[in-house]
Amino acid sequence: MSRNTRVVLSSRPKGVPTPEHFRVEEAEVPEPGEGQFLVRNRYWSVDPTQRGWANDAPNYLPPVAIDEVMRGFAVGEIVASRHPDYAEGDVVSGLFGWQSHALSDGSNVTRKVLEGDMPLSYALGILGLNGVTAYFGLLDLCDPQPGETVVVSTAAGAVGSAVGQIARMKGCRTVGVAGGPDKTALCREKFGYDIAIDYKAGDIDAALTEACPDGVDCYFDNTCGPISDAVMARLALRARIVVCGTAAITDWDPTPMGPRVHRQILVARARMMGLIAFDYKHRWEEAVADLTGWLRDGKLAANEHILDGPSAAPGAIEMLYTGQNTGKLLIKVDAD
Amino acid sequence: MSRNTRVVLSSRPKGVPTPEHFRVEEAEVPEPGEGQFLVRNRYWSVDPTQRGWANDAPNYLPPVAIDEVMRGFAVGEIVASRHPDYAEGDVVSGLFGWQSHALSDGSNVTRKVLEGDMPLSYALGILGLNGVTAYFGLLDLCDPQPGETVVVSTAAGAVGSAVGQIARMKGCRTVGVAGGPDKTALCREKFGYDIAIDYKAGDIDAALTEACPDGVDCYFDNTCGPISDAVMARLALRARIVVCGTAAITDWDPTPMGPRVHRQILVARARMMGLIAFDYKHRWEEAVADLTGWLRDGKLAANEHILDGPSAAPGAIEMLYTGQNTGKLLIKVDAD
Repeated sequence: MSRNTRVVLSSRPKGVPTPEHFRVEEAEVPEPGEGQFLVRNRYWSVDPTQRGWANDAPNYLPPVAIDEVMRGFAVGEIVASRHPDYAEGDVVSGLFGWQSHALSDGSNVTRKVLEGDMPLSYALGILGLNGVTAYFGLLDLCDPQPGETVVVSTAAGAVGSAVGQIARMKGCRTVGVAGGPDKTALCREKFGYDIAIDYKAGDIDAALTEACPDGVDCYFDNTCGPISDAVMARLALRARIVVCGTAAITDWDPTPMGPRVHRQILVARARMMGLIAFDYKHRWEEAVADLTGWLRDGKLAANEHILDGPSAAPGAIEMLYTGQNTGKLLIKVDAD
Repeated sequence: MSRNTRVVLSSRPKGVPTPEHFRVEEAEVPEPGEGQFLVRNRYWSVDPTQRGWANDAPNYLPPVAIDEVMRGFAVGEIVASRHPDYAEGDVVSGLFGWQSHALSDGSNVTRKVLEGDMPLSYALGILGLNGVTAYFGLLDLCDPQPGETVVVSTAAGAVGSAVGQIARMKGCRTVGVAGGPDKTALCREKFGYDIAIDYKAGDIDAALTEACPDGVDCYFDNTCGPISDAVMARLALRARIVVCGTAAITDWDPTPMGPRVHRQILVARARMMGLIAFDYKHRWEEAVADLTGWLRDGKLAANEHILDGPSAAPGAIEMLYTGQNTGKLLIKVDAD
């Protein structure tokens, strides 16, 4: 029978994990016990949050232990089941780890994937963590109003591109910040941003001032660096800031310094809020239903960047932090 | 007849205004025109926000012009009126400026003071801007729950002392941070804090860790400096942070650097909110009614620090920023 190909964390990174921190190995495929089932993973997700999981620092989940399978989202089909709620052939997404075969008792399942007309990989991106993050971060925390200016950092990324498109559907002016002419072109042409700013091209302060003459009503932040500093200096009254990711910071130990945000928050009576999509577990299906509807209606588009096979996994998280990916980064488990 | 004694801004400060930026002068007492009335001020309020008003920097109100009367709150009685809604003898509080006699058309009135059993000066502190700020910042923005840990900086101050006492009434554990043994004693003995930390006495990180074993649920911040940095490192899940004042920062140009707060906000799914009490104009009486009731019932106490006469005004704002005041700082307009 086939083997379980898995990517384990072999040493502890400080900051962004790189290939040297992982080992790809083979193990036996486990047998499901009573109340368990076996998932044959087809895609692994590559997410910025895995940086935090690999580090030994306070987080919303404990760190991955050394020599354990790297924690990560995956999607696949059930190939054997001794669980009453899951049957062979069911397609499921969940926190199955970076391995080809995963045992589960159901507790780490995100959901059964029922949208057979959608690409399977979407379950990890636009119909998974990224899309749901964009959906609730924007609609629940920012509550954007028609005519408001919404600024998105990593605007062409898996989360940012969805934020921009949903904000546009809600009647907002959308301003995307991304790195390089290819990504800003994508922002304008595929994701419909009214304005796309290339932060690598020069003066982001001047570009933001021009793009946001009435200030920034909503800021969906995936960076926490100089881009954020420039946006925070331009808040409109009652601005809402969602802190979703911190891509511009490679290491949080020690805490990096930046301009204090207190006065801007005070003067604008702004609201800066942390977002972790798992907090919306109870409303997950609501987001997936809306996102699926928008995809089917052609109102929402998603870009994917799919790496080929497990050997690509050790370098994948680093790609996110150097901005090498264009769109949702995934690993196809069975190499072509 | 008497003269109008007034304190004018004579030059533009950068940061905290000091005596050299003001001039005390006498002018004629104006006559009310149709639709106006004349207030004889008894107390002037000294508020941290006046630092911002005196500076030429973006704020929620335009800067005070050079050679104009310093903007400030005051309380007094109406001595002449040609306004249908205001009668001679009415006691009013409002933004009447640092002058002994002020004309008003009613637009800068905070309210008519009807609580004749309360000290007149309370209308500027515990029953005025400070009390109302504490009330809405804590109850509306933080929404503290019984058993939660509430940390207050400038805990013995005009706003902080009210926050601590209201939080205690709501069943919270209260931790006050103040400077020096006199103020921490006041925190414990007069304002009922469960724990009072003297930030001048040593290791605030260790003291906060001991005082907040389960983290900080609510942080009412009046400082924006090292105290805030220490508190922000100890947020509990779903912490609420109110940014009310920035007493630890003497100058915002250029923006001072500090540890980035983004990751703490993200991991804790915290909410950091700017507060300006004027936003609660429509609910002002609700706060005053509750605060008055608590004062009458002996559940709430207020400290005042009253300076004697207009000559004390030029140095008064600086006193706030060097922590020389104990309690609400006021100027008694008619020197003893």
